Amino acid sequence: MLDRIAAQLSNLGQPCLCTREPGGTDIGRSLRELLLQGGDLAIETELLLYAADRAEHVASTICPALAAGQIVLCDRYVDSTVAYQGYGRQLDLETIDRLNAIATRGLMPDLTLWLDVPVQEGLRRAHDRALTSAGSLDRLEQTALDFHERLHEGFRQLAQQYPGRICRLDACRPPDVLFVAAWEILVERCPQLARKVMARGERG
Amino acid sequence: MLDRIAAQLSNLGQPCLCTREPGGTDIGRSLRELLLQGGDLAIETELLLYAADRAEHVASTICPALAAGQIVLCDRYVDSTVAYQGYGRQLDLETIDRLNAIATRGLMPDLTLWLDVPVQEGLRRAHDRALTSAGSLDRLEQTALDFHERLHEGFRQLAQQYPGRICRLDACRPPDVLFVAAWEILVERCPQLARKVMARGERG
Repeated sequence: MLDRIAAQLSNLGQPCLCTREPGGTDIGRSLRELLLQGGDLAIETELLLYAADRAEHVASTICPALAAGQIVLCDRYVDSTVAYQGYGRQLDLETIDRLNAIATRGLMPDLTLWLDVPVQEGLRRAHDRALTSAGSLDRLEQTALDFHERLHEGFRQLAQQYPGRICRLDACRPPDVLFVAAWEILVERCPQLARKVMARGERG
Repeated sequence: MLDRIAAQLSNLGQPCLCTREPGGTDIGRSLRELLLQGGDLAIETELLLYAADRAEHVASTICPALAAGQIVLCDRYVDSTVAYQGYGRQLDLETIDRLNAIATRGLMPDLTLWLDVPVQEGLRRAHDRALTSAGSLDRLEQTALDFHERLHEGFRQLAQQYPGRICRLDACRPPDVLFVAAWEILVERCPQLARKVMARGERG
């Protein structure tokens, strides 16, 4: 999805950076390994490692790209930590907000797309992905169904709390339909993009 | 120094654990590598990695040892982060206190020994250690003299702020003299040890 958006932006001559958390930096990739395969970490350790990954990603990747005029497309950001660690692992939400603020230096996205699928469907997709790639489920994906139900509730609550920033997309639709819906929202929310789309249309 | 105290405790039949931060756990050793050799990390990243190391160390090593009745001797703890990252790198002290509280779940030492040497002497020792072991200075030790002066001021302020917990020892004295001084304070502050020392004395 983000790759297709990035390609569309490039077609319009809009510089952009497609990145992800965790693992968007060299140190982040090491931390991602520790997090996904690292055995039974304390929940505070997990939370702090995600925050460290985010701090490095924001400082060394996202901020320089924004300063250079790029649109940054990031797969997961602070909301994922609120949902996974706050709602999923039931850590204190205020603590998570504080950690996110330290890690991001307060930098928030202009738009967040929540690709929403029902819990059972999300688990089935994660399972299929795991079986077609590494051949086994990673540590987070192995955790139980009720965890994923709390997580889904977390994203729902966040979308309700920040309706101006977070946009829910029904991700059960076919990929092409979903992509068009995402693209339309992006253009609608981003005046500089709307102008480029318009200019492209006028040029035929 | 901690090894000698641990040996003395064992002689008295007092179970103890000698550990360190960063790097007191498997994941901590990976993080310690990243921290000491990891190039130019953002200061927030560094702070959060130390906190993650501490969280894992407290949860998986220190708490179980305390629960088993051991005395825990730990080389560096929350004060080092206040001094290094707060005073040394001039990060917000309240942020550091919050991170320390998250990482430790509020667990604080009964006694902290501050082995105080003048800044120039400390740098000389770090330099000698580096030359006799790895052959080069690590990233933290390479930083400038004014950093170490701020760091020393940090420990001085902490000792002033927590006189009941932090005990300053003049570490310019010969190791044997320093060890005796440290041991006397430990026995004085720890009634269960004082009883064991007394019993040993009575048995001759």
